[in-house]
Amino acid sequence: MDKKGLSVEDIQHLLSHGIPMSEGMGVIVDGLPEDGAVLRVPYSDSLVRPGGTISGPVMMALADAAMYAAILGRLGAVIMAVTANLNIHFLHRPGKSDLIANAKILKLGKRLAVCEVALYSIGQPEMVAQVSGSYSLPPEEGSGG
Amino acid sequence: MDKKGLSVEDIQHLLSHGIPMSEGMGVIVDGLPEDGAVLRVPYSDSLVRPGGTISGPVMMALADAAMYAAILGRLGAVIMAVTANLNIHFLHRPGKSDLIANAKILKLGKRLAVCEVALYSIGQPEMVAQVSGSYSLPPEEGSGG
Amino acid sequence: MDKKGLSVEDIQHLLSHGIPMSEGMGVIVDGLPEDGAVLRVPYSDSLVRPGGTISGPVMMALADAAMYAAILGRLGAVIMAVTANLNIHFLHRPGKSDLIANAKILKLGKRLAVCEVALYSIGQPEMVAQVSGSYSLPPEEGSGG
Amino acid sequence: MDKKGLSVEDIQHLLSHGIPMSEGMGVIVDGLPEDGAVLRVPYSDSLVRPGGTISGPVMMALADAAMYAAILGRLGAVIMAVTANLNIHFLHRPGKSDLIANAKILKLGKRLAVCEVALYSIGQPEMVAQVSGSYSLPPEEGSGG
Repeated sequence: MDKKGLSVEDIQHLLSHGIPMSEGMGVIVDGLPEDGAVLRVPYSDSLVRPGGTISGPVMMALADAAMYAAILGRLGAVIMAVTANLNIHFLHRPGKSDLIANAKILKLGKRLAVCEVALYSIGQPEMVAQVSGSYSLPPEEGSGG
Repeated sequence: MDKKGLSVEDIQHLLSHGIPMSEGMGVIVDGLPEDGAVLRVPYSDSLVRPGGTISGPVMMALADAAMYAAILGRLGAVIMAVTANLNIHFLHRPGKSDLIANAKILKLGKRLAVCEVALYSIGQPEMVAQVSGSYSLPPEEGSGG
Repeated sequence: MDKKGLSVEDIQHLLSHGIPMSEGMGVIVDGLPEDGAVLRVPYSDSLVRPGGTISGPVMMALADAAMYAAILGRLGAVIMAVTANLNIHFLHRPGKSDLIANAKILKLGKRLAVCEVALYSIGQPEMVAQVSGSYSLPPEEGSGG
Repeated sequence: MDKKGLSVEDIQHLLSHGIPMSEGMGVIVDGLPEDGAVLRVPYSDSLVRPGGTISGPVMMALADAAMYAAILGRLGAVIMAVTANLNIHFLHRPGKSDLIANAKILKLGKRLAVCEVALYSIGQPEMVAQVSGSYSLPPEEGSGG
């Protein structure tokens, strides 16, 4: 097998059965472009905050899941990869529509992966939030690290 | 009345009835020290991620709620205050116990409030995550801003 | 005049005569694409850190200057715009060559502008650092803000 | 020798002779409290930005140096430790006086150290900037990492 990364189906399964918040939000893996991942949260009234827009924590959770998916899609089942840092700028209010996260790996080191994520709201041209973050990667088996 | 900030009860009501993710996590307002807020998420198996610890998005949601509570506790019902930016460093894995957020306002300007939040896991001495962030404050009524 | 933004020459003058650190680094304004700015620091042995690469503070200073230039290029002489927040991820070591900052405005609100900046080292394909940040914008004259 | 960390004098020497920007700013190591470091930049007119206050890049450079000093003071001569990420919130304008950075190590892992830094301006009670960041630590010799 050439590719060691997980497939869309594998990642969808992990997100839907292992991570409660992703489950609760109904996160869908839309695709795995090279060095990236596209995830979606279907709009639901249960995700809004005062003012009627999808809440910040939903956006952060989706962005975090998208970085995780991009790394799994590239490296395979590094299930124990953990977020080291996440930074989000909220830009424009999302509309009452699905939220899309477009994650891209900027650096894949031995110990740390750095990603950026653009969040969009279906039907709006502007980015609704910009995220960057790093994931700490577990040492490979047998490496003694 | 001297104090224009909201009370613990008011903020608890807002978090429990207006913000779905806080509701779902069962966020509790433990107190409102000066220029700050202490919030808690009771431990629940429904909040864990692969590896058995409380997930990052739960920590981010709690930190965001704690900054919001600190601002409401100081300024009153600025319900439309919105997170402009949030940065989190994950430090140590939380245990299977309640998660505590200790938020403190670092700056309260006319347009922007900046806070830092220390997250702890009951029974562990080390901080589990360090958060900083800013909230954009709506213009006061009548200010035309 | 249609465009209220400053020109490349105006911004170059400001950076070279008003901001000591930019002066010291010899920052050059390479261009002002729409909603953005491209700045450059010519390589110099006086900018390196242990290990022989351009130091982190030089990269942060260049990124900050690039965000400032993008905002001046769009809004005009808002000289008192001040950085509210800056977040940088260092990705790959820059080489012994000029450092380029490509800044883009993600949001231009009344009070806050949010930008992202990609830093490159001439001759290397990978981004050397990823920056995002926000600038606080002074109230317009006569707005009473 | 019990302590493997570097001394104030060792770190002062490194900052004054190896890091051009620190040299140019005249950074002084004031002390090495446990798990931390206190650094100072003497006020100089050559460090100001339009508006007459010490520029943001000077604050970022000082905060970065303070994190580096805290790590060297704890771990010894890990000269190749490199900044992975730095996040700064600018809070209040510093005065025309020395700038102080108070850095504290929040986490010291095998691969990553996370610090926070509070910046103060002598004579002002409020924090002028809040910084958090992570340093990537080189593998120990012989560890094969």
